[in-house]
Amino acid sequence: MERIPILKMGRVLLVSIQVDMHDRLAMSLQDDLTARIVKDQARGVLIDISALDLVDSFIGRMLGNIAGMARILDAETVVVGMQPSVAITLVELGLSLPGIRTALNIERGMDLLRAGAEEAGTLPSVD
Amino acid sequence: MERIPILKMGRVLLVSIQVDMHDRLAMSLQDDLTARIVKDQARGVLIDISALDLVDSFIGRMLGNIAGMARILDAETVVVGMQPSVAITLVELGLSLPGIRTALNIERGMDLLRAGAEEAGTLPSVD
Repeated sequence: MERIPILKMGRVLLVSIQVDMHDRLAMSLQDDLTARIVKDQARGVLIDISALDLVDSFIGRMLGNIAGMARILDAETVVVGMQPSVAITLVELGLSLPGIRTALNIERGMDLLRAGAEEAGTLPSVD
Repeated sequence: MERIPILKMGRVLLVSIQVDMHDRLAMSLQDDLTARIVKDQARGVLIDISALDLVDSFIGRMLGNIAGMARILDAETVVVGMQPSVAITLVELGLSLPGIRTALNIERGMDLLRAGAEEAGTLPSVD
């Protein structure tokens, strides 16, 4: 199982990270996700990290890269489900996750994406 | 990472299985999921297996158990995202996944759950 599944819910893609990330897996996630944003015309990406006990600088950079790539493709990224201990460690390590928006859970993340879409005007119809 | 995260979307719980299941992990998933159905008053469970390259009798039984437990707790279970090759192998192995409803993807699974809830009448308000 060398790929992280990407789930589509309307115009939002959902990624749940459950395994230890390594270089190649992070690369393939970036490839898959950007390809899916284009294919599915997604407007938002939700990344659930509730299974992660630790977010180090590698994961932080990966999340930042994904958010940056998604932004260029006109999709907003929200990281959800961070464990309290992860937030503590991040601050203690001096990692501030620049460029990454967070929300408590999937539902709040969805609200955030929806609010962003409304601010930007009506979504263009593709039918 | 010895737990599979359970994501809540409205009255539906979403589980994405990405790692090799073993006895203890299956047990803890059953425990967590039934506890969450009660706590979140969930009416549906979506289990995404798009990351699985193989569904053997162990996984099949686990999915059946989860569906049975959820049903007793008044929640419908739908398995989504099965790879074509998995469907082929299941039939070749003579495994028919009794008691398990399937849908092509999350969105269709959601539709299925919604249709079931409507058939059963309006959802009781808990506010």
